[in-house]
Amino acid sequence: MPHDITSPTNPRIKALVRLRRRRHREERAETLVEGFEELGLALSAGVAPVAVYHCPELARPGELDALRGYPSFDLAELVTVPPPVFEKVAYRQSPDGWLAVLPSVRTDLAALRPGPDPLILVCEGVEKPGNLGAMLRTADAAGVAAVIATDPGTDWANPNVVRASKGAVYTVPVVTADTDEVLAWLASRGIAVLAATPEASDPYTRLDLRGPLAIAVGAEKRGLSEAWLAAADQRALIPMHGRVDSLNVATSAAILLYEAVRQRSSAE
Amino acid sequence: MPHDITSPTNPRIKALVRLRRRRHREERAETLVEGFEELGLALSAGVAPVAVYHCPELARPGELDALRGYPSFDLAELVTVPPPVFEKVAYRQSPDGWLAVLPSVRTDLAALRPGPDPLILVCEGVEKPGNLGAMLRTADAAGVAAVIATDPGTDWANPNVVRASKGAVYTVPVVTADTDEVLAWLASRGIAVLAATPEASDPYTRLDLRGPLAIAVGAEKRGLSEAWLAAADQRALIPMHGRVDSLNVATSAAILLYEAVRQRSSAE
Repeated sequence: MPHDITSPTNPRIKALVRLRRRRHREERAETLVEGFEELGLALSAGVAPVAVYHCPELARPGELDALRGYPSFDLAELVTVPPPVFEKVAYRQSPDGWLAVLPSVRTDLAALRPGPDPLILVCEGVEKPGNLGAMLRTADAAGVAAVIATDPGTDWANPNVVRASKGAVYTVPVVTADTDEVLAWLASRGIAVLAATPEASDPYTRLDLRGPLAIAVGAEKRGLSEAWLAAADQRALIPMHGRVDSLNVATSAAILLYEAVRQRSSAE
Repeated sequence: MPHDITSPTNPRIKALVRLRRRRHREERAETLVEGFEELGLALSAGVAPVAVYHCPELARPGELDALRGYPSFDLAELVTVPPPVFEKVAYRQSPDGWLAVLPSVRTDLAALRPGPDPLILVCEGVEKPGNLGAMLRTADAAGVAAVIATDPGTDWANPNVVRASKGAVYTVPVVTADTDEVLAWLASRGIAVLAATPEASDPYTRLDLRGPLAIAVGAEKRGLSEAWLAAADQRALIPMHGRVDSLNVATSAAILLYEAVRQRSSAE
């Protein structure tokens, strides 16, 4: 089978590898997404890839046709490469033959348009891309209006965030902004703040999580900063009955978001 | 500072590295735990390490004294090593100077003694050690009686399970057993089975999660097997409002366990 690019030292292949670095992603306003499922999610959200790199030998039959079903797929340049080249650009352990360069998503607060009674997740100081991506995946399932990261140790375009999110970075509005800016934005829109902290006295299940609400969770070691704790309208405790003294931040976010979903969907 | 072992080629050091492999762990009925916090959790659960490897240059002041506060610490042989040796045996990226060889925990169903009205988590076919460990950490916080793995792709002694669990593998009873055996064991004790599946029609929040209950979750790609779905007393749906079509298995487990905690703690 003839391929469009056959050499792992081709300049375009080198440029792809460079996109793993944040600086290059920011300079080019582009990011990478790997995997058939994740690429499909981006396409289903209407994202038009800059280019799609495809290794027919690694992909499954029918996948190319499935992706062609998305209108924005035809806007992308399709580049076929043989397995040795694909394995160089892939960042997964078991590459499935699909990698795309996508335009970076907008992450500024000014672009955010939450609907009425929005449920928003705020994550402060999260370091691990896997945790940020996992929260985004859960936030998608919970139907949140946005996920806002303040002081993150990573960026939304990090391929490991995109991967852990299963592509939800393209389906849920995401924002990166300073704490002060976010607090002012929330206050100006009448969105209440609920801060998750082990120092709270009220279990989250006894609080009212309906109406316009931002649920704020902090990084595992430090928890939320004083700025968030002071600005919070409510402080929520997740009761712990065991010996380990903390929950994973993505687990805490999931428990709180789904309690909000439960309260909001109760017919009352 | 003089150390007990100074050469990375010392046979004991090589034996430690071999314990990363499941076969060696099973042969020796031993496992590794790395990190001050995780070791402290094992000690606080009364586990007596076989040996503790300590690198004073990498550890923080006061940690040795803190660990000496646990009675079972004194039963262990303490071996000091310099940084180059510790870095060889450590499996973390930023080792903190603590690694211990511990006896493997019992994982047979016969050893399990659940109290009255137990809440049990069953995970079928989970492949990733990180997911199994994350579920165990959440299960500890939710106060479950046991976590049972059927057909796992990993073992409870896998260092990445121990690590992701933050040491909860030593605080929560864990079991590995066949599905048939587990179903018979649950039935004989009158423990109801709730199966999480996207094919259910009832949202989990409308089901009764009180009383003796086993919550069963399946691996991400396949979900629960027919054996679990057929044996289940209730099937539970976790509603999803987004575009991604599945939740991470550890996230699903957290949402279900904490709904059970909520229902069980409601004063009624």
